[in-house]
Amino acid sequence: MVQRLTIKPGVPLSEQPNVIGMNRWHPSIPPVASIKPGEEIILETLDFLDGQIANDDNPEDVRKVDLTRAHPLTGPIYVEGAEVGDLLVVDILDIGYITPFGFSGIFSKENGGGFLTDYFPDAAKAIWDFHGIYTTSRHIPGVRFPGLTHPGLIGTMPSIEMVHEWNRREAPLAAEGKAKPPYPPTAFLGGLKGDSFDQAAKEACRTVPPREHGGNTDIKNISIGSRIFFPVFVKGALFAMGDLHFSQGDGEISFCGAIEMDGYSHLHFDVIKGGMKKYNLKQPIFVPGPNDPHFEKWLIFEGISVEDGVNYYLDATVAYRRACMNAIEYLQNFGYTGEQAYMLLTAAPVEGRIGGIVDIPNCACTVAIPTGIFDQNILPT
Amino acid sequence: MVQRLTIKPGVPLSEQPNVIGMNRWHPSIPPVASIKPGEEIILETLDFLDGQIANDDNPEDVRKVDLTRAHPLTGPIYVEGAEVGDLLVVDILDIGYITPFGFSGIFSKENGGGFLTDYFPDAAKAIWDFHGIYTTSRHIPGVRFPGLTHPGLIGTMPSIEMVHEWNRREAPLAAEGKAKPPYPPTAFLGGLKGDSFDQAAKEACRTVPPREHGGNTDIKNISIGSRIFFPVFVKGALFAMGDLHFSQGDGEISFCGAIEMDGYSHLHFDVIKGGMKKYNLKQPIFVPGPNDPHFEKWLIFEGISVEDGVNYYLDATVAYRRACMNAIEYLQNFGYTGEQAYMLLTAAPVEGRIGGIVDIPNCACTVAIPTGIFDQNILPT
Amino acid sequence: MVQRLTIKPGVPLSEQPNVIGMNRWHPSIPPVASIKPGEEIILETLDFLDGQIANDDNPEDVRKVDLTRAHPLTGPIYVEGAEVGDLLVVDILDIGYITPFGFSGIFSKENGGGFLTDYFPDAAKAIWDFHGIYTTSRHIPGVRFPGLTHPGLIGTMPSIEMVHEWNRREAPLAAEGKAKPPYPPTAFLGGLKGDSFDQAAKEACRTVPPREHGGNTDIKNISIGSRIFFPVFVKGALFAMGDLHFSQGDGEISFCGAIEMDGYSHLHFDVIKGGMKKYNLKQPIFVPGPNDPHFEKWLIFEGISVEDGVNYYLDATVAYRRACMNAIEYLQNFGYTGEQAYMLLTAAPVEGRIGGIVDIPNCACTVAIPTGIFDQNILPT
Amino acid sequence: MVQRLTIKPGVPLSEQPNVIGMNRWHPSIPPVASIKPGEEIILETLDFLDGQIANDDNPEDVRKVDLTRAHPLTGPIYVEGAEVGDLLVVDILDIGYITPFGFSGIFSKENGGGFLTDYFPDAAKAIWDFHGIYTTSRHIPGVRFPGLTHPGLIGTMPSIEMVHEWNRREAPLAAEGKAKPPYPPTAFLGGLKGDSFDQAAKEACRTVPPREHGGNTDIKNISIGSRIFFPVFVKGALFAMGDLHFSQGDGEISFCGAIEMDGYSHLHFDVIKGGMKKYNLKQPIFVPGPNDPHFEKWLIFEGISVEDGVNYYLDATVAYRRACMNAIEYLQNFGYTGEQAYMLLTAAPVEGRIGGIVDIPNCACTVAIPTGIFDQNILPT
Repeated sequence: MVQRLTIKPGVPLSEQPNVIGMNRWHPSIPPVASIKPGEEIILETLDFLDGQIANDDNPEDVRKVDLTRAHPLTGPIYVEGAEVGDLLVVDILDIGYITPFGFSGIFSKENGGGFLTDYFPDAAKAIWDFHGIYTTSRHIPGVRFPGLTHPGLIGTMPSIEMVHEWNRREAPLAAEGKAKPPYPPTAFLGGLKGDSFDQAAKEACRTVPPREHGGNTDIKNISIGSRIFFPVFVKGALFAMGDLHFSQGDGEISFCGAIEMDGYSHLHFDVIKGGMKKYNLKQPIFVPGPNDPHFEKWLIFEGISVEDGVNYYLDATVAYRRACMNAIEYLQNFGYTGEQAYMLLTAAPVEGRIGGIVDIPNCACTVAIPTGIFDQNILPT
Repeated sequence: MVQRLTIKPGVPLSEQPNVIGMNRWHPSIPPVASIKPGEEIILETLDFLDGQIANDDNPEDVRKVDLTRAHPLTGPIYVEGAEVGDLLVVDILDIGYITPFGFSGIFSKENGGGFLTDYFPDAAKAIWDFHGIYTTSRHIPGVRFPGLTHPGLIGTMPSIEMVHEWNRREAPLAAEGKAKPPYPPTAFLGGLKGDSFDQAAKEACRTVPPREHGGNTDIKNISIGSRIFFPVFVKGALFAMGDLHFSQGDGEISFCGAIEMDGYSHLHFDVIKGGMKKYNLKQPIFVPGPNDPHFEKWLIFEGISVEDGVNYYLDATVAYRRACMNAIEYLQNFGYTGEQAYMLLTAAPVEGRIGGIVDIPNCACTVAIPTGIFDQNILPT
Repeated sequence: MVQRLTIKPGVPLSEQPNVIGMNRWHPSIPPVASIKPGEEIILETLDFLDGQIANDDNPEDVRKVDLTRAHPLTGPIYVEGAEVGDLLVVDILDIGYITPFGFSGIFSKENGGGFLTDYFPDAAKAIWDFHGIYTTSRHIPGVRFPGLTHPGLIGTMPSIEMVHEWNRREAPLAAEGKAKPPYPPTAFLGGLKGDSFDQAAKEACRTVPPREHGGNTDIKNISIGSRIFFPVFVKGALFAMGDLHFSQGDGEISFCGAIEMDGYSHLHFDVIKGGMKKYNLKQPIFVPGPNDPHFEKWLIFEGISVEDGVNYYLDATVAYRRACMNAIEYLQNFGYTGEQAYMLLTAAPVEGRIGGIVDIPNCACTVAIPTGIFDQNILPT
Repeated sequence: MVQRLTIKPGVPLSEQPNVIGMNRWHPSIPPVASIKPGEEIILETLDFLDGQIANDDNPEDVRKVDLTRAHPLTGPIYVEGAEVGDLLVVDILDIGYITPFGFSGIFSKENGGGFLTDYFPDAAKAIWDFHGIYTTSRHIPGVRFPGLTHPGLIGTMPSIEMVHEWNRREAPLAAEGKAKPPYPPTAFLGGLKGDSFDQAAKEACRTVPPREHGGNTDIKNISIGSRIFFPVFVKGALFAMGDLHFSQGDGEISFCGAIEMDGYSHLHFDVIKGGMKKYNLKQPIFVPGPNDPHFEKWLIFEGISVEDGVNYYLDATVAYRRACMNAIEYLQNFGYTGEQAYMLLTAAPVEGRIGGIVDIPNCACTVAIPTGIFDQNILPT
């Protein structure tokens, strides 16, 4: 019988009947379960906003959301025999939803923002209904697509030295409001209590950015059937995950986010002894799953690193933003508002690619939309 | 019988028996051929370095290359009936090589550089032999893959206003050596002569960067079978293309470049009247071809926007560079030098993707390598 | 809340707590549920041998199995508004297993046989463990693959005239033991009782063959995400399904069978009024699902319609048998017994194709095995 | 420089300027070229009807065609060092057309027939124009698709014992007109002359059927990029090929045939010493190419082994015929005649699959049509 950690949907992580998770990274957080190499486990996880978003038509909850409660992760899982320098091999055998709907949204510029917040500063929300492998949204009519279901966030625990280094290097950006420093008031550190909690909460890293342990990479192709090789930085690896996405476009551009859901992940663990050194690995690598949806026809938009008349030097971020804006402007020819198109790009299985990144001074990026997800022809005719 | 513009391989553009092209963008360049909507044409093109690179084992030619001769384009082609505001629809019906080999290289830091020039400052060269749809290199043993053949450079002619604007906005970067300003000494403007030449050459834009007309986008998925929709900025569209790649990895990271080759392109042209306005298009969009190679298994490397201990804010360029460096370090476990791995990433059909681009402060990017191109198992075991 | 018909696993259809199904086709069987067009339902189904096969290493249960209990179907489902001449549109939104293992087997020549029974006359069994989307078998080591999960049997109810016609045309073959006539002793006709039962059981068609309503087609590509258009032959359509396969090779060559399992199917129903006439349809058509596993490399075996020195005229059955035998003989070079290879071909996602079917006198067929399912290289070197 | 055997298009094999081929199988035919393992060669080949079909709208040439001139093969090629019992490894590096059009047709029932000759007894013809990787036909409007280009016929030379055995086993069918016996009047045996010719021509096997050496398998997935492993039955292997198809549907159901063309094949040869015994191989196996066209959506038709009210026992040929007829009847809803639909199924990249081949008494087969090849929606709505 496979071990399973269960959630009570709709209940915040800190009020769950059992201690099953955490919303910060710190190596002193005690494990919630342990597993041997070769074994499987099923982890249930809450949506990335800890149940704050309702299945209704009002984006007010998105506008007022408390982002410091993100992300409720399930873990850490102690992997027996895993030691510093090993590789933890995680197979994502399956992922599924628990409640049959999810959400995408646009954070307001004042509270969270997103990749295109200068163009779409107001909060918005789209609810997605799940129909087996497919999803549709009453808020973005005329589209239906299969999920490319994956965890937005998955990783091993950093060592205490890494925690310190992350805080150090992020501090200058945090001072400008461009990074999120430790924030004890809403920290939830699993079973950690009292002084230990107070001590850890001051330095426990926020879960927002991806880092060397994986974390919130929001890589949509770490999908069902993937195998990921994680560096082990602490004894037992202390694996954790959350932020399940029914589907996401590359970039998760609205920040709020993909199609966010409660769900479960069926995992298999193994360990490669001494693998970090053997393969010279300091960051995760992975092999994507075999069942990602097939699409025959894509419509692809180009963007270059020129914005508002200014030429940026080989800037892929600007180029990708322009590609996304070009796509959004185009989709408005087919009955969508800009906000709908924005939420579609963040949610549908669109691909964001690097084109040329050397052709000075301009970088080219592309965003590709599978045309088959629409119930109308979106090609020029 | 399909019209065909032919090259003499190995002869510089400026010395070709017939005037078939240009190496700058300027609307006063006279067309070399004209075509009606619904018709097909075959355009032969020289390699992007105008024949300066030899099929030998000595990278000296790469080190000393005259980059101002790039790119010898074939065109402009005048499309009858195409007017400003239309869309030019180009189908790439086929692409093939003329000489049965191509080259990749690393420009030296002093002359051209590239995405990883700080790590690989010296010139290098790899010759690739073509075997039908496959290629191998004596300089990068143990790999064989099918081409994803495409034009690195393809586009319509800018208007004179666009030429001026491009020069304006690139000037600040050009002053720092980060962009390439007009350069009359090696400009070749097709049939333009005398004063007209002198006048145009002073302002004719270099072909290096991708811009709003397409141009040197180096998007590998504008592959055989693609349909591209180009804005028309001048009467007759004045289409041109060149820089054919037998294969390229996303980013074309070494700058020198993909697998560069002489070749021919079989094209079909059509026009959508008033399409720019109808579809709100200011930049090309395209549908990729149906025959891109299938790969089942990919090994994917992550990178985040942290470099040398510094945390960059949502910088996809840095994140992609880290992903590439992680891949290169990894491949060195399998018998490749860093230079070989670098030239492999620039040449093989690797995919560069945007992961999360909103998870402040870190962007995540990935580079994916199809494992089947190697004659050994490159997965951790 | 989606309606769900549940089974008690391991309990024969005739002893289930609720009447949820039938193991014969007859239009007088009363519906077990009804649904409106546009609605969804989840149907649980028993394995095709009605729970007679145990998860152990002894094939005795396969040898002695009572085949007349096949197939326990869930249904019929009454679709409101569906009338004779309409098309019933069924979307397979999802399929999953209930118990985490399944079985393949070889029926003994005396009891069931199979495609290769002359070569493998003895009963055998392989148990497959499910690990999310993957499966492995302790009885066929060294293979692991993702499922291409589908119903072996799915269809609408025949009219009484069709029942009579089926019995008529199958009678000559039944007389030779080559078809299965009605068999009242083990017939289970849902809620039908008393005289009505006796009357129907005498003529109710066995579920073994595929027929014009679909039925036991064993088409592996009616997979998750498929849309099937069924002719409606009786009022309410009276849809039923069962015989879920975690995976199957084309042909389901061992007859016992695919990877057989208990499971659930999440379905969506719709109706196209008058569709049979409108589209001139007398048999189902379908669009397969978007998430079938990707395989890059296949090893393909040819077979021609020559067997034991006799040349058969354009006989695809013989040609496919030879292709399968060629594959089985080949796989024995890699450590498998003939029986293991046979059970692998029936269970793994192999593709059986028609090659040339006109090149008199020989037909060519092929069977294709994805090489990536093995943990060793099975190509000649 | 790669060796190349050239044809003069439009000139019958027997009148070619150079002796480059044969239209029968016999081991005494002298090689037309020789090659070493590890080397490449380019073979040009005539269309399978030896230039008898014109690019016009009149099917009279199809009706009156002399079928005994099929197939003009290029070869035999002597492979140095290949001995009986070895495996010949042939890589199809590329295939292309020489003349930019091809043909499909329907043979009249009196002269050739085909899979559906009872339904379509009259001769018909469709000319296909090639546009790079795509094709269209003025005789079947509204379809456009990329080729899945391949040789219909490819193989090694049988030994003299095999020639005798083939003649022996085919004789009973030949007596009924269901097989083609040796026919000296139109035999062309390369450089063989005089008595040697007379002796060989009496027993040289016709090239129509596929046999143990490969031959006319008409397997569309032996496509560009494939690697085929052929048994070697005579010293030097004596490889030959022809019957190039720009595209074909599984079964090549009209017999006349696929999209037939003149063309060239770029090949690489290698030898595995003793491979037949080592791998227990008596017939070719192959790995298909990596660039076959991608299609997202297929419409699939079922057929069962019941025809004209008669139930056939597990007969895949009947089942496939019914699937094809179901498809043809359906396509007539979209403006095609039966003949057009028939010629489309034989020419387009449709897939013919074995469904269940054990569900007594009925076999199920399917034929799958990629919906994207049409310029209209062919799904029921």
